[in-house]
Amino acid sequence: MNSTIETILNHKSIRKFQERSLTKEQIETIVKSAQAASTSSFIQAYSIIGVKDQQKKEKLAELAGNQAYVAQNGHFFVFCADLHRHELIGEMEEKDFSGALESTEKFMVSLIDAALVAQNASIAAESMGLGIVYIGGIRNNLEEVCQLLNVPKKVIPLFGLAVGYPDQSPDVKPRLPLAHIYHEDSYNENNSVLKDQLKDYNELISSYYEKRTSGKRKDTWTEQMAQMLSNPKRQYMKDFIEGKGFSRR
Amino acid sequence: MNSTIETILNHKSIRKFQERSLTKEQIETIVKSAQAASTSSFIQAYSIIGVKDQQKKEKLAELAGNQAYVAQNGHFFVFCADLHRHELIGEMEEKDFSGALESTEKFMVSLIDAALVAQNASIAAESMGLGIVYIGGIRNNLEEVCQLLNVPKKVIPLFGLAVGYPDQSPDVKPRLPLAHIYHEDSYNENNSVLKDQLKDYNELISSYYEKRTSGKRKDTWTEQMAQMLSNPKRQYMKDFIEGKGFSRR
Repeated sequence: MNSTIETILNHKSIRKFQERSLTKEQIETIVKSAQAASTSSFIQAYSIIGVKDQQKKEKLAELAGNQAYVAQNGHFFVFCADLHRHELIGEMEEKDFSGALESTEKFMVSLIDAALVAQNASIAAESMGLGIVYIGGIRNNLEEVCQLLNVPKKVIPLFGLAVGYPDQSPDVKPRLPLAHIYHEDSYNENNSVLKDQLKDYNELISSYYEKRTSGKRKDTWTEQMAQMLSNPKRQYMKDFIEGKGFSRR
Repeated sequence: MNSTIETILNHKSIRKFQERSLTKEQIETIVKSAQAASTSSFIQAYSIIGVKDQQKKEKLAELAGNQAYVAQNGHFFVFCADLHRHELIGEMEEKDFSGALESTEKFMVSLIDAALVAQNASIAAESMGLGIVYIGGIRNNLEEVCQLLNVPKKVIPLFGLAVGYPDQSPDVKPRLPLAHIYHEDSYNENNSVLKDQLKDYNELISSYYEKRTSGKRKDTWTEQMAQMLSNPKRQYMKDFIEGKGFSRR
């Protein structure tokens, strides 16, 4: 196993960081690594906002559901789907791109682009001995996040990424069985097999939590998912996205 | 610079592979690396389909717009947004998740999840000396791709990833200037600055193509984007996605 794969397999989200900021050089290395990711037809439909201002970080932490590590970390990045520069290109080239830019296809492209870029940033950071955690909580209230970061229309902040020197060392969390998520030649839609795999996985996850919390918690994965999915969140999203000029057609 | 960052920065899409299949062990290492990525609230809303059947690969190559390397490579992966297992969890836990599963929020989550996973797979493969290329072309006709791979409702193939031993060595393609995609504390919505950055980048890209094609091609980036965005593609996507049970509300 090479050191890159070791870094990848050793991933765990870090939610407590030392009080030590990343240097300008570290930030640049992470952003350049991010940019090196593949991008659909070279569209580069993303932007990254680094948040240094402590007041803004505190506000983001609050908006993300009072997650302290959003404010306390070495650096906080916000990854955005961005078709704003493509609107500018429309002006430069005197063309109307609205059919493309408002399509669900390009909404998907910009989300995928931004996520590929973010994962490169994460791996680069982790390879430097830093820890990371993704922050989907910024989607709790995207309108306020957009205002806070002065984000124009055709730009959607998708998630944050807190990066820093780890001040904790959690265990790696076991993923779904490989056979459950990986199929060959055809999706294995044998639902009873899939359910059996989930039951096995439930035992694994339950004992993972039991061990990690000294018995305080031993919920299964399907219980955890049921808890989450019974309470639909962020139901404003469809209107918001379309309001921002994405996925209208 | 560590070897992981070197791997990341050295990325270039490979579109010609040697006739040599990946081993089972290589495929497993790539898939396990993929699975180690972060996932929103541990939802793991993706699946991966490895395509070995040569006839299916030929068909996918055709559907993707006659891209030969979709059929000729060491292994072909299809990354899918997947909320099918969460529907099964609803049955297992006797709960109705439709509000959550049909939300635009969860559509976004599943796209981001699948992309994070795919980028881990890509970096892992590249660290092993393999080359990769993402294939968005499978979205040309997703209905046929779904039928070919027997994909149930609540699963959307998003893109392919061809992996294999490189049989070409293209140059690294220069990305947008860091200052253009990376902002600090606030999105820099100074459109004349943004346009100037694009003009500088145009020169860079034009000379990149000129050098690479011995003068045959020297289009700028904004010309390339204008060409692409003037012709909206895959306009069936919104209906298709909603038909699959995603992003309905």
